[in-house]
Amino acid sequence: MPLLKSWVASANDANHPFPLNNLPYGVFSTDSIDPHCGVAIGDMILDVTAAEAEGLISLADEPLFDVPFWNELMEEGPAVWAALRDRLTVLLAEGSAEQDRVEPLLVPMVEAELHMPFAVSEYTDFYAGRNHAFNVGTMFRGPENALPPNWLHIPIGYNGRASSVVVSGTDIRRPWGQLKGPNDALPRWAPCARFDIELEMGAIVGTPSDGPITVQEADDHIFGYVLLNDWSARDIQAWEYQPLGPFQAKATATSISPWIVTKPALEPFRTNAPEREFELLDHIKDCGPMLYDIELEVTMAPEGKAPTTIARTNYNEMYYSAAQQLAHHSTSGCPMNAGDLLGSGTISGATKPERGSLLELSWGGKEPIELDSGETRSFIEDGDTLTLKGAAKGDGYTIGFGDCVGTALPALKDPYER
Amino acid sequence: MPLLKSWVASANDANHPFPLNNLPYGVFSTDSIDPHCGVAIGDMILDVTAAEAEGLISLADEPLFDVPFWNELMEEGPAVWAALRDRLTVLLAEGSAEQDRVEPLLVPMVEAELHMPFAVSEYTDFYAGRNHAFNVGTMFRGPENALPPNWLHIPIGYNGRASSVVVSGTDIRRPWGQLKGPNDALPRWAPCARFDIELEMGAIVGTPSDGPITVQEADDHIFGYVLLNDWSARDIQAWEYQPLGPFQAKATATSISPWIVTKPALEPFRTNAPEREFELLDHIKDCGPMLYDIELEVTMAPEGKAPTTIARTNYNEMYYSAAQQLAHHSTSGCPMNAGDLLGSGTISGATKPERGSLLELSWGGKEPIELDSGETRSFIEDGDTLTLKGAAKGDGYTIGFGDCVGTALPALKDPYER
Repeated sequence: MPLLKSWVASANDANHPFPLNNLPYGVFSTDSIDPHCGVAIGDMILDVTAAEAEGLISLADEPLFDVPFWNELMEEGPAVWAALRDRLTVLLAEGSAEQDRVEPLLVPMVEAELHMPFAVSEYTDFYAGRNHAFNVGTMFRGPENALPPNWLHIPIGYNGRASSVVVSGTDIRRPWGQLKGPNDALPRWAPCARFDIELEMGAIVGTPSDGPITVQEADDHIFGYVLLNDWSARDIQAWEYQPLGPFQAKATATSISPWIVTKPALEPFRTNAPEREFELLDHIKDCGPMLYDIELEVTMAPEGKAPTTIARTNYNEMYYSAAQQLAHHSTSGCPMNAGDLLGSGTISGATKPERGSLLELSWGGKEPIELDSGETRSFIEDGDTLTLKGAAKGDGYTIGFGDCVGTALPALKDPYER
Repeated sequence: MPLLKSWVASANDANHPFPLNNLPYGVFSTDSIDPHCGVAIGDMILDVTAAEAEGLISLADEPLFDVPFWNELMEEGPAVWAALRDRLTVLLAEGSAEQDRVEPLLVPMVEAELHMPFAVSEYTDFYAGRNHAFNVGTMFRGPENALPPNWLHIPIGYNGRASSVVVSGTDIRRPWGQLKGPNDALPRWAPCARFDIELEMGAIVGTPSDGPITVQEADDHIFGYVLLNDWSARDIQAWEYQPLGPFQAKATATSISPWIVTKPALEPFRTNAPEREFELLDHIKDCGPMLYDIELEVTMAPEGKAPTTIARTNYNEMYYSAAQQLAHHSTSGCPMNAGDLLGSGTISGATKPERGSLLELSWGGKEPIELDSGETRSFIEDGDTLTLKGAAKGDGYTIGFGDCVGTALPALKDPYER
């Protein structure tokens, strides 16, 4: 598919993240507009709520977009998702008969503040990147036992905390927690000293289900994707995670990029999962290309310094697709709902500069990485800004995600002081 | 505190679960009433929504009770919680000047269907009963290593799945899942063969928080308690739970009793946590009696047979209180919301007939229990009805919870057949 041309000139640049081919969904506000639905087109945001109020978009008997989240559209189902995309494409295409009516509804992106694009119903985080699981397993158990016995048979996942999901740009306060070093006799209460990122993609469930669904059905149920940074307190995690998994180490915050890139925008970039060492059982068997060729990058910028790229990898490094994760998630009969967010798990490539966490990049702190400023880092220091970037590169156009940014604030001196 | 007498005669029986001292909150419907808020008093339900509409209850500018959940009251805060309890006590007390106006708003409980009493925001399940953790640990690792090293220092917990919480009376479908026996070379896809219960109490968060809170604050934030049965697929769990904890094994369903017993009703029954083997760190240190003397019981009834009591224990067997669990939950800065549900973890006493799961009662299937019918059970069989019962025994009165009941349905022949 080539670049689709828009009358919004900035959208026609081959490297712009938001061409007409993309049309990602977000929630924005300005000095004069309360948070509500918008779609990115070039350097502008089309006020979708206003477009619906003006009658330019009409998909349901009741308004879908007079709310600060996209869940109501999700609940309408895939036929309405497709109808909206078709309508937006017509309105914004070069030569549109309705340009005159639409143009007043564009808001310059530089004037807008972006908010959470959807209400997170529940949040699940997976551990489905093979290189990441191998690296972490090697650090803790040696390379022979790096992957747990179940890893090649099911996408391992755990339930996270929906209330802790925040939009890009939200500062992240370094948490306190109970932790115990390997040489400590007893645990202590202290600020996290090994604060980390995890480079992930998040898949958003759009269609609810109430029993086991197939991988193909699961793929159909997914509404779109975001970048996701699962902030992780490694020292708290090391002490708490046996036997029931990570809990407070993962509950401070999870940041997502502000634009939901929908599945149709990613369609040209589908790729196959890797060859299987063990044949997968039917309930999660591959049934088509359900990963995507999306280039990913992490930058780190100490306070007041320029950013250094510390990792580059690709979403197609995953072992399990989001569709397989969702299918597995449903096996028990677990009800899944519109707005459920599934984190892919940390995405790491095979080589050192492709690793999606500081834990792996600095090999548990033993090999600090060097930044362009000359500083070194094993884990996050106060004031560091971490940014995830993602883009799929098409033939003369780019499908961008919008950055997923967070700055680490110092721990509170006394977290109980009111 | 003695029995408070009500003009609803059935509420004055010393063994009735719903005297005026209790006033638990539920959601009910009848042939002519859509689901909305009610309070149990003796054999009757006071239609709280109607009482508000009639002006008998007036606590806020907008109606709080014209909804099928109690979350709106929770969000009003403890002063309004107390005002409602005071008002209900006045309306229902023997000699009430308003008996004539209230009496027409009573609905016989036998005519009502009960629904989920609140919208579950998020659900967390703990592992904070010492005897249970010791029993399970002994089965898997031997008595010397039964308790994980962190167990005596933090209440171990994991995030569960809010969408899977159902009200008492909901049938529970035996799940399929991926599982692997110890002698199997490869995993397989099969119905769960080791389906189990967990006898727990659930604490409901009423007041939101957005950073670490103390144990005293946490106790103040709790709105009330329910009985909770965390249905567990032991064979699925055994295969999936390393390294990130239980996932699909716990996602089929969690049942709760239909009435929220509020904290003031339980006030006379506070008990202290046990002596501490290690002094707890300040953030979860004991600061008063925050467990409760609540007698608990589990019965099992094969299809068409009378129930057998298979376990009796007490909520005061817990090592950590719900307040300590909530305080720990908040340490990372994790936002907590009205409607968050915290499962206590399985409650087991020290001796065999006090164990709160079949896994413990049958010692992993090695010592099947015998029912009054002469049948034996290691785990749940299709058609079995499991019932949790709970009551605090006061001086001439009882604070009952209403039973938490579920019947196991056979697994679907093909869970993907539409």
